[in-house]
Amino acid sequence: MPQNHQVLLDNRPEGEATAANFRLVSADTPALQDGQVLVRHHYLSLDPYMRGRMNAGKSYAAPQPLGEVMIGGTVGEVAESRHPKFTAGDKVVGMGGWQEYSVVDAGQPGALRKVDTTHVPLSHYLGAVGMPGVTAWYGLVKIIDPQPGQTVVVSAASGAVGSAVGTLAKTRGARAVGIAGGPDKCRYVTEELGFDACIDYREHKDALSLSKAVKQACPDGVDGYFENVGGMCLDAVMLRTNAFARIAVCGMIAGYNGEPIPLQYPQLILSNRLRVEGFIVSEHMEVWPQALQELGQLVGTGKLRPRETLAQGLASAPEAFLGLLKGRNFGKQLVKLV
Amino acid sequence: MPQNHQVLLDNRPEGEATAANFRLVSADTPALQDGQVLVRHHYLSLDPYMRGRMNAGKSYAAPQPLGEVMIGGTVGEVAESRHPKFTAGDKVVGMGGWQEYSVVDAGQPGALRKVDTTHVPLSHYLGAVGMPGVTAWYGLVKIIDPQPGQTVVVSAASGAVGSAVGTLAKTRGARAVGIAGGPDKCRYVTEELGFDACIDYREHKDALSLSKAVKQACPDGVDGYFENVGGMCLDAVMLRTNAFARIAVCGMIAGYNGEPIPLQYPQLILSNRLRVEGFIVSEHMEVWPQALQELGQLVGTGKLRPRETLAQGLASAPEAFLGLLKGRNFGKQLVKLV
Repeated sequence: MPQNHQVLLDNRPEGEATAANFRLVSADTPALQDGQVLVRHHYLSLDPYMRGRMNAGKSYAAPQPLGEVMIGGTVGEVAESRHPKFTAGDKVVGMGGWQEYSVVDAGQPGALRKVDTTHVPLSHYLGAVGMPGVTAWYGLVKIIDPQPGQTVVVSAASGAVGSAVGTLAKTRGARAVGIAGGPDKCRYVTEELGFDACIDYREHKDALSLSKAVKQACPDGVDGYFENVGGMCLDAVMLRTNAFARIAVCGMIAGYNGEPIPLQYPQLILSNRLRVEGFIVSEHMEVWPQALQELGQLVGTGKLRPRETLAQGLASAPEAFLGLLKGRNFGKQLVKLV
Repeated sequence: MPQNHQVLLDNRPEGEATAANFRLVSADTPALQDGQVLVRHHYLSLDPYMRGRMNAGKSYAAPQPLGEVMIGGTVGEVAESRHPKFTAGDKVVGMGGWQEYSVVDAGQPGALRKVDTTHVPLSHYLGAVGMPGVTAWYGLVKIIDPQPGQTVVVSAASGAVGSAVGTLAKTRGARAVGIAGGPDKCRYVTEELGFDACIDYREHKDALSLSKAVKQACPDGVDGYFENVGGMCLDAVMLRTNAFARIAVCGMIAGYNGEPIPLQYPQLILSNRLRVEGFIVSEHMEVWPQALQELGQLVGTGKLRPRETLAQGLASAPEAFLGLLKGRNFGKQLVKLV
């Protein structure tokens, strides 16, 4: 069996996460038992939710145990199979974690899923046609439910989730406005992703200044907001909401380090009769088939062309992950392992 | 025609509202035209929403115009009628404002409604079987939708809205926990209204302290919260919410004077997958018949025994209203005009 490199969570961050929280080790891959499959990972997904798992405190999910392989989505190829439904060479999606190989009990529901790479590149099953895409779909379709002509704003618009939110909003006849960090990302959001406008939050030092830019970009107000960030962006957009606007809360990246991020204007929830709803896509498995079908078609037909940032080799995963938390990636952050 | 005393909004508050914002005047009541009805008001309703109308700024409703009679719900008796559907002596509910008499275009939809006082005292049509009761009903039934065994918390629990929320929650098999100001109100909430517990927020100087009391009173966590107050109460209860809890935002009295009341822990919206929804009952007229029927039965059968605080005479309305904003009333605040 091949040598398997792995990244473990070595210790928990105090404040900001650092590379010293992780440890790279090498291990033998165990021999397969009946019903198991050995997967060679081609790509590892890096996602903001992982930062939450690094903390010990109670959150919606159990914390990542110390000394174990970091959790994470993976796509790859079956290297060896002792399960009747899988054959060497099959392309598969799973939760293999931060390592080069994984041994999977393939009969466990949801553990491993075969995918078709005819029209959709394998890596996109970790992005637009995977968990981030379904996240976008759930928040946009099930919470915001935009009507034609309404305005939908999304923060972290150039990211894996945000880019799908914009495309899904446009296909429903809504106006899509992004918020992103820096002129390059904003240009990408409007020119390549087809958003109607994009606001560079780095040009604004407070919520009131950002809010003026939101007003300019949304002359008819905001009917739906897909929140990937929290903090200043949420305040700024809430100030421009129309009556009965819906806010889907998907990410609060500003708060993962434990610092307080108060919401400045909660009275707007009443005066604008807002609905603000937090969600976690893994709790809504019933929508995945419908969502993946639409997302696969959008990617297959070129209507959604997600961008990826690739880090090379497992050892680069910690630094790539820390960069993601600081917004240094461009689109979906992956680690290429082969 | 009788002399009519009226309270006008004379000038807008800067910060806290004061008696000097109002002006008492006397006017003739005009002669009736065809289709009009003269109503002699027996009771005037005082409600927190009126504070919002006193401001010039944009809110969900147009500001109260200066120099005009303050808006307000009234119950009374038809003194004279030139409308075929109304007869002198009919008991009616309307929006007569802060005055002793009103002339109503009775054919206008919703302007005037006859009520039956056989089982329900006339004044309760301004409280438990009126707008505050329907407000309680909408937030509890349509937003919180408590399941048997779940825990519902309501702030301002001894008030007109809060008391109805508790009774409606109990009839649905939920545990009802109130928050109120002072030992007398808390005793009333548990002993007379039948809540399972009540927390005196005045014993707590910050949200974390209040939150510990919420934990004690809600050993299984909070599944629904009916918010009449905002500020510290909202922070304290949010910290104790269970996954998928619903928060109906009905009032943010702490913010009416324009001071900032940030929400301290918005990340809980995500980590606990909360739904936070603001609403205004007048925008949901479709539920009024169903809600009023249930509320009328609860009052008629003695299951809901709302308390009232009566101020005597129109001239007492401004001070009674300012007292309401400071929580000096006990139950529904009314002005008795006859």
